[in-house]
Amino acid sequence: MDIGLVGLGKMGGNMRTRLRNAGHTVVGFDLDPEKRDVDSLEEMVQALPSPKVVWVMVPSGKITQDTVDALGELLGEGDLVIDGGNSRWTDDQAHAAQLGEKGIGFVDCGVSGGVWGLENGYALMYGGSADDVATAQPIFDALKPEGDFGAVHAGKVGAGHFSKMVHNGIEYAVMQSYAEGWELLQAVDVVDNTTEVFRSWREGTVIRSWLLDLLVGALDEDPGLASIAGYADDSGEGRWTVEAGIENAVATPAITAALYARFVSRQDDSPAMKAVAAMRNQFGGHAVQSAKSSGEPGPEPDLA
Amino acid sequence: MDIGLVGLGKMGGNMRTRLRNAGHTVVGFDLDPEKRDVDSLEEMVQALPSPKVVWVMVPSGKITQDTVDALGELLGEGDLVIDGGNSRWTDDQAHAAQLGEKGIGFVDCGVSGGVWGLENGYALMYGGSADDVATAQPIFDALKPEGDFGAVHAGKVGAGHFSKMVHNGIEYAVMQSYAEGWELLQAVDVVDNTTEVFRSWREGTVIRSWLLDLLVGALDEDPGLASIAGYADDSGEGRWTVEAGIENAVATPAITAALYARFVSRQDDSPAMKAVAAMRNQFGGHAVQSAKSSGEPGPEPDLA
Amino acid sequence: MDIGLVGLGKMGGNMRTRLRNAGHTVVGFDLDPEKRDVDSLEEMVQALPSPKVVWVMVPSGKITQDTVDALGELLGEGDLVIDGGNSRWTDDQAHAAQLGEKGIGFVDCGVSGGVWGLENGYALMYGGSADDVATAQPIFDALKPEGDFGAVHAGKVGAGHFSKMVHNGIEYAVMQSYAEGWELLQAVDVVDNTTEVFRSWREGTVIRSWLLDLLVGALDEDPGLASIAGYADDSGEGRWTVEAGIENAVATPAITAALYARFVSRQDDSPAMKAVAAMRNQFGGHAVQSAKSSGEPGPEPDLA
Amino acid sequence: MDIGLVGLGKMGGNMRTRLRNAGHTVVGFDLDPEKRDVDSLEEMVQALPSPKVVWVMVPSGKITQDTVDALGELLGEGDLVIDGGNSRWTDDQAHAAQLGEKGIGFVDCGVSGGVWGLENGYALMYGGSADDVATAQPIFDALKPEGDFGAVHAGKVGAGHFSKMVHNGIEYAVMQSYAEGWELLQAVDVVDNTTEVFRSWREGTVIRSWLLDLLVGALDEDPGLASIAGYADDSGEGRWTVEAGIENAVATPAITAALYARFVSRQDDSPAMKAVAAMRNQFGGHAVQSAKSSGEPGPEPDLA
Repeated sequence: MDIGLVGLGKMGGNMRTRLRNAGHTVVGFDLDPEKRDVDSLEEMVQALPSPKVVWVMVPSGKITQDTVDALGELLGEGDLVIDGGNSRWTDDQAHAAQLGEKGIGFVDCGVSGGVWGLENGYALMYGGSADDVATAQPIFDALKPEGDFGAVHAGKVGAGHFSKMVHNGIEYAVMQSYAEGWELLQAVDVVDNTTEVFRSWREGTVIRSWLLDLLVGALDEDPGLASIAGYADDSGEGRWTVEAGIENAVATPAITAALYARFVSRQDDSPAMKAVAAMRNQFGGHAVQSAKSSGEPGPEPDLA
Repeated sequence: MDIGLVGLGKMGGNMRTRLRNAGHTVVGFDLDPEKRDVDSLEEMVQALPSPKVVWVMVPSGKITQDTVDALGELLGEGDLVIDGGNSRWTDDQAHAAQLGEKGIGFVDCGVSGGVWGLENGYALMYGGSADDVATAQPIFDALKPEGDFGAVHAGKVGAGHFSKMVHNGIEYAVMQSYAEGWELLQAVDVVDNTTEVFRSWREGTVIRSWLLDLLVGALDEDPGLASIAGYADDSGEGRWTVEAGIENAVATPAITAALYARFVSRQDDSPAMKAVAAMRNQFGGHAVQSAKSSGEPGPEPDLA
Repeated sequence: MDIGLVGLGKMGGNMRTRLRNAGHTVVGFDLDPEKRDVDSLEEMVQALPSPKVVWVMVPSGKITQDTVDALGELLGEGDLVIDGGNSRWTDDQAHAAQLGEKGIGFVDCGVSGGVWGLENGYALMYGGSADDVATAQPIFDALKPEGDFGAVHAGKVGAGHFSKMVHNGIEYAVMQSYAEGWELLQAVDVVDNTTEVFRSWREGTVIRSWLLDLLVGALDEDPGLASIAGYADDSGEGRWTVEAGIENAVATPAITAALYARFVSRQDDSPAMKAVAAMRNQFGGHAVQSAKSSGEPGPEPDLA
Repeated sequence: MDIGLVGLGKMGGNMRTRLRNAGHTVVGFDLDPEKRDVDSLEEMVQALPSPKVVWVMVPSGKITQDTVDALGELLGEGDLVIDGGNSRWTDDQAHAAQLGEKGIGFVDCGVSGGVWGLENGYALMYGGSADDVATAQPIFDALKPEGDFGAVHAGKVGAGHFSKMVHNGIEYAVMQSYAEGWELLQAVDVVDNTTEVFRSWREGTVIRSWLLDLLVGALDEDPGLASIAGYADDSGEGRWTVEAGIENAVATPAITAALYARFVSRQDDSPAMKAVAAMRNQFGGHAVQSAKSSGEPGPEPDLA
């Protein structure tokens, strides 16, 4: 089938390739002239036969909204927009309603797989009406991994991005789980080679997983991870997962721990810990460390 | 080779089978007369050629200590004891020293794989001297999974159980990660079928893993898990992991969250939450719920 | 001065009394005819001399918005609305802008003190322009506690409710702190009388506080808190605090722990723990407890 | 009465002063010749009338054990040792048994109050037999604060240090509570002066406390705490509290959060976060930050 594809970054570009490999005709647009097939959204839309199907693969938030706005002007009755980006699931219903006023269908699709998706296929979770999903089905079939798993019609509009959000929340916590284990394994002087222990876990253990495989890959490249800073960004979906938990009174302590560990990893100095140190100093005469100084603090003065 | 095997429960019994399938001669002893091959430890030891090799697969703590004590009396110079149970790694050095006084070697071996190990092989992490490990190697080779992974000489005595303890700590947190995601996915009315979403994650996603496969298996048996109480026991290694973290000033917030969630799951009523409710009542005139009553609390009285 | 007061519940009613005790003229309106001084907002506004000052003390969200809407119709240039309720601080700027279009001033005021405020005074944190705060100052002076503390002009509009929100977030975590200590003190068979230990802490300790005093009061009424269920509601500000932390990449692990403990306290059974129990059962043959059954689970079957 | 006092550091020295101010005769020994009244433990013991009462105020662990060992040699039937240091409560029973073999009594006493205790009195929690506590009562009366609170006979031997341990665990979490609130209050650009907000909370609020007063004192000395590093040591009792919780299956998430925040505050770089960053890099092509580099990481490359 013919597909318009907006956004040809690392993810969108690879998807174009995988769709074409499956025999589809993809007309891609991107702000970057070197990546795009056509020079404007208008040109892209004109190149598509009706009903026109457009896959949007741009950053969530304002850029996605702008793209939906623009497509709302260019598309019409019976056409379909699929948002494959990382939109917050609570935005989906608004986008569906906005486009629905013109008779344009809407499907939200969460995508997992990272840079490996081009070769292995992308896991897809999508939400929308049965008719709209049926229209998009050939695209999903081309993008998904081979085999029985990797694609699901999760429910109504929003269910796709909601499922992907929860997936990412789980991912945060699973990564944190391995990371804590790795730190502890290194901290005690009993294991000779932590990389080999992690490698051995790849088969037969309860905790074997793809993330474990990836971590072993990283450890093979740099056994002590000496070249990598203990600094981890977050891309929104972990926050949304915790917020969704809070709104629904669902405790997510492990996911939240993972998120907070990232927050703290990005601080040069912790204001909260400044306050703790200040209080300790007030009541106990505990030595405080001067800001930015290095070295151990002095001995505890409150006991002989 | 000839192997003495002490403890023929679910794990030990399956290991006997797997060792025999690999061509080894196993002489098993258990307190249960229906399971054992010989009627006493003495008989077991006498049946083994020298150097005698005994695999201990009994509950950690007192029973393991009693078994080590008894074997210390029965074995001698050049023999070898392998502790394949869930002993705390800090006990291993003491056991090695105790047996070493008589010239008996000692290897600690953490074992993962559960009821699936009989067929798929057991993941093994072992600690001890190069010579002792070499003596035990045929056993490890028979028990481990096929392929490149699943067995590791982790380091000196203690390194095996330490690695297994960290493995289990990670396992606690990974299980908690999926569990939180499942609760959240169910809590919001947007996904039609949470089982199908979890099933789809088995391929192509970042979070694909064996534990995910198991959870899907459980959901297939009982889609809403209605027949299972939200009650989770813990078997010691999660606690030891957190304690090892504390002793070494390593924060393990996700693993700890998993452990604490299990503690709370076993309480009929939370004393801490009684105290919180009592304080709220004191300052705000907040309605408290009578112990064991059901139903929602009354409206907040502190605002018009 | 003359003050219109909307909302005469437990908090608003006590505030009316305290304002009148300070010599102010209060015209109160409430939906409840038995509590109110006038029968309508219109009548209340007409009874006030210009510039009219109205204190709003109603539940946050829709009722506050409706009240702001109505006052926006009834008041005019130079009048002032003070929102003393528990509004989310992010709503304040919108209310200020809405009223500002008509020249009506707006101050947000967080109020602490609970049922004790009538006698001891209310702690006040307010946000707004210097002029608007100056207009409201006689009210603040009447409501605040005696002494040097208990009232602060925290900043621009929103700063009052933001400060109160953070206050409440801290309150959640401090309550949780004492609650955890109380549970632990009771759990170990070494202290004879936990109430007396807590009582002793009221002087000389690092942790003496008003909340500790309140907890001792509750323990005096019911030493083991046997009559109170371990069930704690939450009123919004704890959630908002955690969400504000997340939006600003500020980790609040203790406050979050307090919030999550309340969420869990309200569950009859934990879906997440059902999932954990289900996974344990799959890999280990661990006994699961049937839903709603009581008693201990069976012994661990995976070791001899 | 006559009291032997071992350990004349900041705490012990102040206690000597307070005891002497109350009319007691104190014979103090310390390793530091400038602080001590006598030159040896032997001399101290000889200077005391029978029954001899010795207060031990030295660091917990080996030094306390050595002191108990020495006093066990020097004292006899009917004498009394009071351990006022920060011993782990699980050591107390052993010390009591060791001394009890010679008929020497033993009382453990947790002490709170820090550098303020000299003037305000020390909060005391003690454990031991009724007879031993009665012997020590004049000391407790001299050290405790005036008023009805501040001293408690908590139970049998160990109850004093156990109560003090729980007190300190609570203290960790309460400090963390204020610290999180302070960081959040500073992080959002709406409050003009966070110190003034904290100061206002000293009266009328739910969260007024001595620790809050201390924090305001620290903020007055250094409003932004710019001179203090976000580095907080821990002195053992927080760890013991969490460990006691784990041993008794009592979840202490807020106390644990406080402890872990201190652990992390002392790391230059977090190994766990290195592992998280490494995994992110593997699956997503996420930019990682080179170790020790500064500045923001690059843009997320996985979406157009």
